[in-house]
Amino acid sequence: MTSALFPGSFDPFHNGHLEVVERAHRLFTQVTIAVLRNSEKGDPFFSPEEREQMIREAVGAFENVKVVSMATLAVQVARDEGADVIIRGLRAVSDFELELQMSQMNNQLSGIETLFIPTGAMYSFISSRLIREVAGYAGDVTPFVPAPVQAAIEARRR
Amino acid sequence: MTSALFPGSFDPFHNGHLEVVERAHRLFTQVTIAVLRNSEKGDPFFSPEEREQMIREAVGAFENVKVVSMATLAVQVARDEGADVIIRGLRAVSDFELELQMSQMNNQLSGIETLFIPTGAMYSFISSRLIREVAGYAGDVTPFVPAPVQAAIEARRR
Amino acid sequence: MTSALFPGSFDPFHNGHLEVVERAHRLFTQVTIAVLRNSEKGDPFFSPEEREQMIREAVGAFENVKVVSMATLAVQVARDEGADVIIRGLRAVSDFELELQMSQMNNQLSGIETLFIPTGAMYSFISSRLIREVAGYAGDVTPFVPAPVQAAIEARRR
Amino acid sequence: MTSALFPGSFDPFHNGHLEVVERAHRLFTQVTIAVLRNSEKGDPFFSPEEREQMIREAVGAFENVKVVSMATLAVQVARDEGADVIIRGLRAVSDFELELQMSQMNNQLSGIETLFIPTGAMYSFISSRLIREVAGYAGDVTPFVPAPVQAAIEARRR
Amino acid sequence: MTSALFPGSFDPFHNGHLEVVERAHRLFTQVTIAVLRNSEKGDPFFSPEEREQMIREAVGAFENVKVVSMATLAVQVARDEGADVIIRGLRAVSDFELELQMSQMNNQLSGIETLFIPTGAMYSFISSRLIREVAGYAGDVTPFVPAPVQAAIEARRR
Amino acid sequence: MTSALFPGSFDPFHNGHLEVVERAHRLFTQVTIAVLRNSEKGDPFFSPEEREQMIREAVGAFENVKVVSMATLAVQVARDEGADVIIRGLRAVSDFELELQMSQMNNQLSGIETLFIPTGAMYSFISSRLIREVAGYAGDVTPFVPAPVQAAIEARRR
Repeated sequence: MTSALFPGSFDPFHNGHLEVVERAHRLFTQVTIAVLRNSEKGDPFFSPEEREQMIREAVGAFENVKVVSMATLAVQVARDEGADVIIRGLRAVSDFELELQMSQMNNQLSGIETLFIPTGAMYSFISSRLIREVAGYAGDVTPFVPAPVQAAIEARRR
Repeated sequence: MTSALFPGSFDPFHNGHLEVVERAHRLFTQVTIAVLRNSEKGDPFFSPEEREQMIREAVGAFENVKVVSMATLAVQVARDEGADVIIRGLRAVSDFELELQMSQMNNQLSGIETLFIPTGAMYSFISSRLIREVAGYAGDVTPFVPAPVQAAIEARRR
Repeated sequence: MTSALFPGSFDPFHNGHLEVVERAHRLFTQVTIAVLRNSEKGDPFFSPEEREQMIREAVGAFENVKVVSMATLAVQVARDEGADVIIRGLRAVSDFELELQMSQMNNQLSGIETLFIPTGAMYSFISSRLIREVAGYAGDVTPFVPAPVQAAIEARRR
Repeated sequence: MTSALFPGSFDPFHNGHLEVVERAHRLFTQVTIAVLRNSEKGDPFFSPEEREQMIREAVGAFENVKVVSMATLAVQVARDEGADVIIRGLRAVSDFELELQMSQMNNQLSGIETLFIPTGAMYSFISSRLIREVAGYAGDVTPFVPAPVQAAIEARRR
Repeated sequence: MTSALFPGSFDPFHNGHLEVVERAHRLFTQVTIAVLRNSEKGDPFFSPEEREQMIREAVGAFENVKVVSMATLAVQVARDEGADVIIRGLRAVSDFELELQMSQMNNQLSGIETLFIPTGAMYSFISSRLIREVAGYAGDVTPFVPAPVQAAIEARRR
Repeated sequence: MTSALFPGSFDPFHNGHLEVVERAHRLFTQVTIAVLRNSEKGDPFFSPEEREQMIREAVGAFENVKVVSMATLAVQVARDEGADVIIRGLRAVSDFELELQMSQMNNQLSGIETLFIPTGAMYSFISSRLIREVAGYAGDVTPFVPAPVQAAIEARRR
């Protein structure tokens, strides 16, 4: 196996995401993180460009990891990037069903496989939604996000 | 048992919905599909009129199936249409809990029973939400929706 | 729709089961309750004959309900009894997945459909397993089971 | 144990919420209900002030219960009010995972513990979302909400 | 609130259980751990007496915690011990539904309330079943159980 | 990535398992299927030797797949076989939680990662338990298992 695509909203990218990348970069020749640009989710907390930049800084230490933007379906990005598999973190049961549906639809659309990487227990309670809520009330997100994301959240407060 | 009401958003109606209708039309004397006109879900992908028309074409082969619009509660439509039961497809655990709550509330509101029809394995991964996402990026939805819905999605792209 | 098969272990039959029968007997021409004789579940609390007798007494008031024993697969009993559908109660998420798998396998084996009847909120916490546990410690099961089952549990204690 | 904080959107406060308060006021010296003012959930059905007033009327009979507004994180309100624990009702599996994540994040943020109080079976199917839907179509919400909430819903209709 | 009962099989007692006791002993005047003596679960790994002894050593540092055996229903032990509430740890969705059913049945049997204490993320993956499996193959259980339990597992191996 | 371990009871090995192997053998240099010899699950349907033999026949076409027996923990087999990751199929929510716990415990025990491969929709309803039940009543298991398993089930019947 060589190349893996890790697609997501990453709004923001947190330590649970970083752990998936950290695990994946040892298992795959190449890991491409793809930031989802549009969705039904409403206004983003950070713009896709901001998210892309923050992730690039957060994963800079991993030589075989790159970051791209995604203005199309994940299966199209996988094709464009030559990815052999899609990877996704799995944290909780409520994640699981939607992830399973997406993996089956993606397989039907393009034949690509999805592999799930379980989140470590330490990060199982972290979600982008809860981080946005804590950040929105000026709570301390230091234990939950990489340094570049923390810096961006603090910069916005001033 | 004679008459069943099948209420839903159907935005859009897909092959999993069609399978429920196909199963139900053999079990009940009459099946009424009721398209929900309003909801908290935000802007629809297709208007209620468009959805009603597409479904009517998709189920045209079934003599004992009709399609109506629903600008009130499902229990009120059931009363107006003389339906003996409400039917709903069940696909996944995440569907199940909200469906169970709605069935218990509908029973409390009007005494009507709900029967759940399990989705076949083939269609268990299809959801209107995923279809909207694939369609939004010009992906191919042919395997997931009836021909009239596919035609409407393609017409919109031009 | 005319005839429904309601298969299960019913060890013992409780008020949640009775509620399913009560709802079903109004929706179907005929309801056949089939007591599962063997399973991987270990020694039963009541023998299949005892269970069959208790259920017969508990549902005696319903003219279109009968009780049979089942020493084969539910789909075979359905064929033998001429049942058009299998019905099952649905109480909780943990029930749901196994039930969905069984319904899909039964459909694959014989083409028969399964309809799920949601348990009312009042009985959602009652399970045969918990009743066996309470009965085993001489706790009061009066609120949870029909009179013939309660009588059998008390007779065993003497 | 002395003081408990019960935070939530309560849009609207319903009989399942009231049952949690009724159970908690006997277990704790003081129960503080905190109405969440902002969230990602979009436009509220009732304003925070309206909700606060309705809840105050609904829980007026309990001497050791008070109602406050919450324009910050629950852990901050807990600190300001001197609450020893956060309490939350638990109704269904879909509640559970998000609640567990929030409790672990709150514990990480401030060291505060969360205790979960299970909803009684009678109220397990009631949710604010379903009540808003029923109320929006002029359905009868009398069995699901306390009198002051029912009055507010009716006043709005006129 | 004064006195809490913490019932369970504890076969064996592990660090997730210990964490519940550690959290509870600060919230309640008295915590009574009750070891379930019989169940439908088959042969135990440790006898009830062994389990009781191990737990007593593991929680010796907490002055307001005691350990008893339970040859009856939890609600009866709660009555005998004068406990005001039952407490249970909550770790995962699969725990949750059975726990909710038991709490509702216990409330119906005796009026007693159950409070759920969420397990910390660090211990969310530990279960007695997995520990028995690891111990059965002479794997290292040091990170998962208190010292007295580890000693008992090692003593058995010799 | 080179070598993956696929551990399980496989009692019996079915088409869902075969699909995981079929997907994995294209993604990994080597796939080792390890048959669990002992468990708390009671008497097996087929002996470990029978299962090992059946699987060997079923996967004979894949050059980079081998089958071994496992009388120890999966993490020990992974070490002995030089496997880089453990792989497991994921079919349903009820699988997911136990699998997640095992993956976290295995990671804690040995540092090994687990990757989850989602089962295709076609096989999502197949489980060894249901196959044993169908086979036990002489039902037709042809659509659910590979030919060598079907032959073994039929041989036993004579």
